[in-house]
Amino acid sequence: MYIEIDFDSEEAYYMQLRNRIIEGIATGRIIEGEALPSVRKMSEDIGINMHTVNKAYTLLKDEGFVKVDRRRGAVVSVDSDHILDINRLKKELNITIAGASCKGISRDELITIVDEILKEYGGEV
Amino acid sequence: MYIEIDFDSEEAYYMQLRNRIIEGIATGRIIEGEALPSVRKMSEDIGINMHTVNKAYTLLKDEGFVKVDRRRGAVVSVDSDHILDINRLKKELNITIAGASCKGISRDELITIVDEILKEYGGEV
Repeated sequence: MYIEIDFDSEEAYYMQLRNRIIEGIATGRIIEGEALPSVRKMSEDIGINMHTVNKAYTLLKDEGFVKVDRRRGAVVSVDSDHILDINRLKKELNITIAGASCKGISRDELITIVDEILKEYGGEV
Repeated sequence: MYIEIDFDSEEAYYMQLRNRIIEGIATGRIIEGEALPSVRKMSEDIGINMHTVNKAYTLLKDEGFVKVDRRRGAVVSVDSDHILDINRLKKELNITIAGASCKGISRDELITIVDEILKEYGGEV
């Protein structure tokens, strides 16, 4: 599994790792039922400490993207609770759109960007 | 300026403070030209340390929401570089929509949420 961390980014490493894995699932590069590398292996591969990898895996578990299997470790398993997912999405979009609103970005521009990104993740989500 | 920090949240305090200020600007509760409380005062008011407040203010400056005035401190001044703003928005939306895509949220649901939030920030952004 190829994951790249930007060590110069403002974004926390565990959040970058979590984001790269979600993008991997969304694009189909990482598939349902696939085991993520062990915390130790991921830590060695990408050069961040085990505690940080563990934090990313725990967040992915809490958000319903992976399950922990006693034998195989963290396994991709997307758990979908529609109401919860919608509420989480609202919360995430709220601040992004507040910022866009301050900056004078129009609804049309926003929707165009949303559609561009949806296309990348296979059209209709 | 009333700002509330959720000390139980997974989200870093500086990011919460930055988010509350952006929401304040988007809703018009905090207005262009208004000085934010000094780092020391904000730190005392909301109960997070000065380093953390400073980190939030620096991020808001880097993102073009405030300017630092030698006399008045951090002053709300929204700086709009359209290309840069659009690119930042794309980056922010990308991971949110990747997650939504994994969870099977439809384009219609996504657009409905976007419109709900836009309404909150004054209709057309």
